[in-house]
Amino acid sequence: MFIQLDFETDQPIYLQLVEQIIAGIARGELVPGERLPSVRNLAADIGINMHTVNKAYQELRQREFIQIHRQRGVVIHPNGPPPADEMYITELKNTLHPLIAEAASRQFSQEDFLKLCQGIYDNYRKGGEKND
Amino acid sequence: MFIQLDFETDQPIYLQLVEQIIAGIARGELVPGERLPSVRNLAADIGINMHTVNKAYQELRQREFIQIHRQRGVVIHPNGPPPADEMYITELKNTLHPLIAEAASRQFSQEDFLKLCQGIYDNYRKGGEKND
Repeated sequence: MFIQLDFETDQPIYLQLVEQIIAGIARGELVPGERLPSVRNLAADIGINMHTVNKAYQELRQREFIQIHRQRGVVIHPNGPPPADEMYITELKNTLHPLIAEAASRQFSQEDFLKLCQGIYDNYRKGGEKND
Repeated sequence: MFIQLDFETDQPIYLQLVEQIIAGIARGELVPGERLPSVRNLAADIGINMHTVNKAYQELRQREFIQIHRQRGVVIHPNGPPPADEMYITELKNTLHPLIAEAASRQFSQEDFLKLCQGIYDNYRKGGEKND
């Protein structure tokens, strides 16, 4: 999996790493049970601090995207990503509200907003259907 | 305009204030040229620190949603909110990407995501059409 970090932005590196790993899962490049590099190796590979990688892994573990085993190392959660439960959907709504308020205030139309989202969604899940 | 702050959340109060004022603009409750309360009055009204209100107003000024005049006080930008220009749309895309990656990874379908956005959009701009 290709990790691409932007050192020029305000966004913390550990958070970029978290997002890229979730994006890898969403694209199906990282599958349940798959091993991720150790903290040491990933830090060396992408040239960042071990603490940064550790912070990203701890966050991913807390959010149940990965498991960290003393013996087997770091793996994508064998049960797959956490579900889109009620708590998640509430959080998502709270995050989208101010984004959409600003878009609407700037006269960015609902139609254009939905098209933008659709375009991004298509990167991750072709057809946008649930795989039941 | 009704300001509702959540003191229990991790989100900084000044940012909540910024978002609520932009939401007020998006709902058409705050119109171009309209006066906002002074830093001192708003701080007293909602029971928060003057520095917090000042920080919110400075951010809104920097993002061109309001103007701050020595004489006339604080007003909603007379030209209306800034446009949805290329820079804004690029930023919006960058913000939406990780949100949508996570939604997709959690098997939250594109259709459900678009419906959620549509529902939120309807709070702000009935019909979702540009007012040209």
